[in-house]
Amino acid sequence: MLHIPHPSSRRHFMGQSAGLLAAMGLWNTNFGQLERPLRADEPALDLISADIKRLITRQATPYNAEPPAPELTSQWLTPTRSLYVRSHGKIPRIDEKSFRLSISGLVERPVTFTLPELQERFPATSTLATMVCAGNRRNEFALGGRKAPGVPWDVGAIGTCDWQGVSLAQVLKHCGVKAEAKHIWFEGLDAVEGHGDPFPFGASIPLEKAMQDQAGEETLLAWGMNGDPLLPEHGFPLRNVVPGYIGARSVKWLAKIVVSDKPSPNFFVQDVYKVVYDDKPESTANAAPIMEFILNSAITEIRRFDNNLRIRGFALAQGSLGNAIERVEISTDRGKSWQPARIITAPGKNTWSLWSATIPAEGVKTVTVRAFDRAGNSQPESQKFNIKGYQLNSWHTLPVAGAGQGA
Amino acid sequence: MLHIPHPSSRRHFMGQSAGLLAAMGLWNTNFGQLERPLRADEPALDLISADIKRLITRQATPYNAEPPAPELTSQWLTPTRSLYVRSHGKIPRIDEKSFRLSISGLVERPVTFTLPELQERFPATSTLATMVCAGNRRNEFALGGRKAPGVPWDVGAIGTCDWQGVSLAQVLKHCGVKAEAKHIWFEGLDAVEGHGDPFPFGASIPLEKAMQDQAGEETLLAWGMNGDPLLPEHGFPLRNVVPGYIGARSVKWLAKIVVSDKPSPNFFVQDVYKVVYDDKPESTANAAPIMEFILNSAITEIRRFDNNLRIRGFALAQGSLGNAIERVEISTDRGKSWQPARIITAPGKNTWSLWSATIPAEGVKTVTVRAFDRAGNSQPESQKFNIKGYQLNSWHTLPVAGAGQGA
Repeated sequence: MLHIPHPSSRRHFMGQSAGLLAAMGLWNTNFGQLERPLRADEPALDLISADIKRLITRQATPYNAEPPAPELTSQWLTPTRSLYVRSHGKIPRIDEKSFRLSISGLVERPVTFTLPELQERFPATSTLATMVCAGNRRNEFALGGRKAPGVPWDVGAIGTCDWQGVSLAQVLKHCGVKAEAKHIWFEGLDAVEGHGDPFPFGASIPLEKAMQDQAGEETLLAWGMNGDPLLPEHGFPLRNVVPGYIGARSVKWLAKIVVSDKPSPNFFVQDVYKVVYDDKPESTANAAPIMEFILNSAITEIRRFDNNLRIRGFALAQGSLGNAIERVEISTDRGKSWQPARIITAPGKNTWSLWSATIPAEGVKTVTVRAFDRAGNSQPESQKFNIKGYQLNSWHTLPVAGAGQGA
Repeated sequence: MLHIPHPSSRRHFMGQSAGLLAAMGLWNTNFGQLERPLRADEPALDLISADIKRLITRQATPYNAEPPAPELTSQWLTPTRSLYVRSHGKIPRIDEKSFRLSISGLVERPVTFTLPELQERFPATSTLATMVCAGNRRNEFALGGRKAPGVPWDVGAIGTCDWQGVSLAQVLKHCGVKAEAKHIWFEGLDAVEGHGDPFPFGASIPLEKAMQDQAGEETLLAWGMNGDPLLPEHGFPLRNVVPGYIGARSVKWLAKIVVSDKPSPNFFVQDVYKVVYDDKPESTANAAPIMEFILNSAITEIRRFDNNLRIRGFALAQGSLGNAIERVEISTDRGKSWQPARIITAPGKNTWSLWSATIPAEGVKTVTVRAFDRAGNSQPESQKFNIKGYQLNSWHTLPVAGAGQGA
């Protein structure tokens, strides 16, 4: 069996080594650190949980890491050890006993809960939801000739987990939301540095979204993932999870909820997670914060067996109410002609679908994928560069290793 | 918070202790053994994996065990440590290196695969499927006054996992199924004792079912569950998984597949997993082996908070193509009146739905649940006793602890 590693990175040689080592079961737990050698003045990895050390480090501090692409789609539900980690500050170690969640602002009854109080007062629930970073696939902008600042994600800043917690809608009803309320703010216990005084990561979502209570659409205040307590890297002891929205709206180490008539003034709402095409302050000020995740698909693995290529990947419908992947197609001639891929796992709402295809290897130098969703979205062939490097969802193409360059 | 343990067992005091200990985080890993004290002449638990020791032992040898009911529905995807174990002989320890799977019978090309050969030759896939024992809820027959032989399951011989493997349909196509083929036999590497010479557990499924290849309906030859290799207790290194069929048709330690024009002659196909109402040999001979799992639902937890009861449970549609749960209802007057429960997680095909309900506690002495599926099935109020104790799916009723007996 020839394992063809995932090459869509400038660190082509390193990527190949990692893939081959993983395929041979020889993955070195420190390998991730080599992906981006530390500068002499940089601290070591800000990482607490040993289980997730197989992730590939994309930024040492704050710690940002993603799984090797083939690991992403070995199974439908992402094991906790394989979920990407996105952090904006040092990963805080929170004492569960002294932890408090406050809910204030435009509510009849502001409250503060300990974690056991939250768990006792509201019925527990469990939601399957795909988490995806708005910057996933950002490194392809660089491959296209323009490098966006920010974490250089390959295709792995995405994963699908089973989240345990309570319904945000029920908690808000308990507090009594006032008529003028329009937005729900979330704030973490981390400290973001490098932009003046340290401040917590924050997000906000529209009230209408926060009040959705259907299975698969409901925002959770979550203390568990995949049946275990959250890892520190994923927000222990509490985070919110917003199905259908970019990961940046799901705040880890969540300690403060504010009900307001305005979106959150947090830096990451007002200045960061927006699609803008120039660096004029008014362009950013006028752009809407990204909320729903975008339709996307990617190839995670190409293996050769006998005279065939076996291709696998994921597809995710735009995070709109009731939306789902309609079909996935692949091309071996860079989009002149297409053939259907097979959907192999596609259970529900706001969660990814896995797909696969087996095609003759003869003459194939590249494979391209594109997906369509029921809401009528399709992926573009190419995409205008945006300076923060978000929402890249043009067709995803990988070269077939050993087939020569060009095509 | 008052935790109300799951009392639908004759071992009421023991059940309560277990539930309270679990709620207090004081679960003793040896507790399961106390559930059924060993006789002096009995060997110790036939258990290899330390992780699953929290299961409640229902039979020490062969090892049969289920999770405490509240653990079942804490999350949608059953963690491997919480999946029931059903075995018919001693759990075999299989050497992966010497393991072979043979496929023979009515095929053009009989083959034998090592595990790596199987993994290389066919594209890997991942399927979400609920596994349920045909004998789940058997102990309720005993509560109703007639005890069926067999493992005395409460409601926990069920769980939903993400299974990794290859498509049986693709493997069969590779071997070339002959025109006269109608059934696929599966045989394990275990040794069932107590019925003459030891023999392996076996099953068979109709060819038509084995050839289904849609997402969520496809039978797998599976080496992984929840992203990890199978535990020995769950069939390491290989088992089949038949979505929509009772667990007995998914054979662990699978080493032999035979394509035939007849159902398997195995004892567990011809004599055991059948619904029969008397012990005449011809009654068993004439009964069809159970294939699809039946529509079912159960309450797994009742908690009291303030003046309310919080009720949780699962519901599973009959395992028919494309079927799903339509609605779940609860009653506090033993079925005179009903109110809807809320479906909290319900992603897809051949997998369970979780539901919950919050109702005023005042005066409630019992809670009853029933479910309906889209294929038009409903659960009966009561059910005729069958002598092997299978397919119990009448309304599930639990007393509310502290509310007195009777109602």
